[in-house]
Amino acid sequence: MSDPVWVGVDVGGTKILAGTVDHDGAVGHTVQRPSGPRDGSPQQLESTIVDAVLAAAAGAPLAGVGLAAAGLVDADGNRVRFAPHLPWRDDDVRVRLADRLAAPVVLDNDANCALEAEVAHGAARGQASALLVTVGTGIGGALMVGGRVVRGSGGMAGEFGHMRFVAQGHPCQCGLLGCWEQYASGNALIREVRQATGAPGAESLSGPGITEAALVGHPAALAAFEVVGRALGVGLANLVAALDPGCVVVGGGVSAAGELLLAPARAGLAEGLVGGQWRTFPDVLAAACGPEAGMIGAVVQARRQCG
Amino acid sequence: MSDPVWVGVDVGGTKILAGTVDHDGAVGHTVQRPSGPRDGSPQQLESTIVDAVLAAAAGAPLAGVGLAAAGLVDADGNRVRFAPHLPWRDDDVRVRLADRLAAPVVLDNDANCALEAEVAHGAARGQASALLVTVGTGIGGALMVGGRVVRGSGGMAGEFGHMRFVAQGHPCQCGLLGCWEQYASGNALIREVRQATGAPGAESLSGPGITEAALVGHPAALAAFEVVGRALGVGLANLVAALDPGCVVVGGGVSAAGELLLAPARAGLAEGLVGGQWRTFPDVLAAACGPEAGMIGAVVQARRQCG
Repeated sequence: MSDPVWVGVDVGGTKILAGTVDHDGAVGHTVQRPSGPRDGSPQQLESTIVDAVLAAAAGAPLAGVGLAAAGLVDADGNRVRFAPHLPWRDDDVRVRLADRLAAPVVLDNDANCALEAEVAHGAARGQASALLVTVGTGIGGALMVGGRVVRGSGGMAGEFGHMRFVAQGHPCQCGLLGCWEQYASGNALIREVRQATGAPGAESLSGPGITEAALVGHPAALAAFEVVGRALGVGLANLVAALDPGCVVVGGGVSAAGELLLAPARAGLAEGLVGGQWRTFPDVLAAACGPEAGMIGAVVQARRQCG
Repeated sequence: MSDPVWVGVDVGGTKILAGTVDHDGAVGHTVQRPSGPRDGSPQQLESTIVDAVLAAAAGAPLAGVGLAAAGLVDADGNRVRFAPHLPWRDDDVRVRLADRLAAPVVLDNDANCALEAEVAHGAARGQASALLVTVGTGIGGALMVGGRVVRGSGGMAGEFGHMRFVAQGHPCQCGLLGCWEQYASGNALIREVRQATGAPGAESLSGPGITEAALVGHPAALAAFEVVGRALGVGLANLVAALDPGCVVVGGGVSAAGELLLAPARAGLAEGLVGGQWRTFPDVLAAACGPEAGMIGAVVQARRQCG
C-alpha cells in the first residue's frame, strides 16, 4: 500500500486545482477541474472537489487535505461565509468535506494560504512577520505576525484592496469610492493605457497584454506600470506604517511583470513611509510559489494542524 | 517590612508620572516630575525616573517596574530608538534603569502600554484582538492580535497617524503630505474652527477649548467635531478592513469629547468599510483607563514578564 499523501486544493472562481504536496512544498501529481457555475449547488461543487482530491491522490491514502478558498472564511476555519464567484453562502464546508473524504481537512482563505506558502517555502522564507499583496484584477492580501496568519476577529483581515486610497476617487465594484485596488491593479493598468492611447482598440486591453507590451518596451505600457507601481508602493507605505512587517511579498498576475512593477513600488514606499531615517525598510519581493501558492500553503497549514 | 510593589512610569514629553499599580489595575500612590529639557542628558532623565519610582514606592521593595515611553522602542523592549521630545537616542534604557533600581524593568512604547491597560482593565477587557487610536495633537496607535501587542519587525508598528489620508493633502510635521492625523486630531479641530470663524481671535484656539465649546453647544465647535469625527471613522475603516479587530478603543485628549467624536466616527466607519453586509462591525469605544493608561499597562506587561 502507498504511503499517505497530503493534498492541497485551491478552489478559485473558475477552476479547482488539486495536487499532492510534499514536506518541502514541492507539488507532485496535479489535476484541474472547472469550478462550475456560481449559481450551482454547494453539493455539486463539493463533489467536484472530492473528485479532484481523490484523482490527485491517485489511490494513495490521504494524510490530510488543505483547502484554499477564494472567499471569506470564518476565524475558526470551518465555514465559507461568502465567496463572490462560488455557490457557498455561510456553508460548513470543512466538516462536510472531511466527512466525505474521511480525512482531516483544513480550510483557509486563498490569500492566507499563499502567504503561508511564501513563508514556508517561498520568498518570505524564515520571516516571522510578512505582508502579502496579490495584485491581479484587484488586490488581495494577507498578514503574518509572530509566525501566525492574522485572521481578524471575524476572519476578514487582509482586505487591503478596499482601503480608501483617493477621497471621492474612482468607483469600486465593492460600492465604495477610491479603493486602493482601483489605482494599483490590472484594472488600473488598463485604465492608464486607455487614457494614454485614446479609446480606439482599447476594448481589447488586458492586464497580461499590457505586461507583454511593457516587457517589449511599449511606451504607454511602461508608463502605466510606472503609475500603477507607484500607487502600489504608496498604499504599501500605509500598511508598513501600521504593521512594520519584516518583508512585503507581491504576488498575483500583475506581479509577472517583475521589476517593472516592483521598482516603482519600492519608490512609492520610500516616498510615502513615515520615519524613513529611523527605520529599516522591509524588502519588497516577488512571490516565488506561483499559481500553486494557495495549494501549497493549504497543505502547510494542514500539516501543522493535523500532521 | 512592606510587601513588594509594582510601579508603573509613564515618561511623556513634558512630565513623568509614576505610581504603584495593583493586580486589578488600580493606581495607588502617584508622583509627578517634569521630564526636563529635550536637549538634556539621558543620565539626568534617568535619574529623575529613578527618583520618581522610588518616591512612588515610598520605601516598599520593588517587585518590578513597567516603563511606558513616548518614543520608538525596539522590538525587544530594550532600547528607546528615538523620542521626539526626550533626550534618548538609541539608548539602552531598560538595562540601565534595571541596574539603578535593582529591580526588573519592562519597557514599551506608551501607546502599546495604553492598549495593554485597556485590554486588561479597561474598555477592551477580554478582547484578544483590539485596535487603539489615541487622538490628541496627532494620532498614536497600537494593535493587539491573539492577545499580544503587535510590535512589528523593528518595533515601529502602530504609526497609524501617518497613513496617507488625502493625496497631496495638508503638510504634516513628519514631512509627508495628507497624513491621517492632519484630518482627525486636535490640530484638525483647530483648523476646522479657524476656517469656519475666520482669523480674528483664532490664535488662541486649543483642542480642549474647542471640546468645551462643543459640549456647551457652540455651532462651529460642533461642526468641527462632525468633520473630524467623520475623518477619524473613515481612517478607522481602512484599519478595520486590513485587520478586522474585535473592537476599536479611542483614547487621547480629544476623546474627552465622548460621543461628539465617537458618533461621527462610527458613521465614517460604516460609510468607509468594505463588505458591510458580510461582517460584524467592531465596537468603537471610549478608552476607560484615562491618563494613567500608560502607567497601568506598563505594569500589566511587567507582571506578565516578571511576575
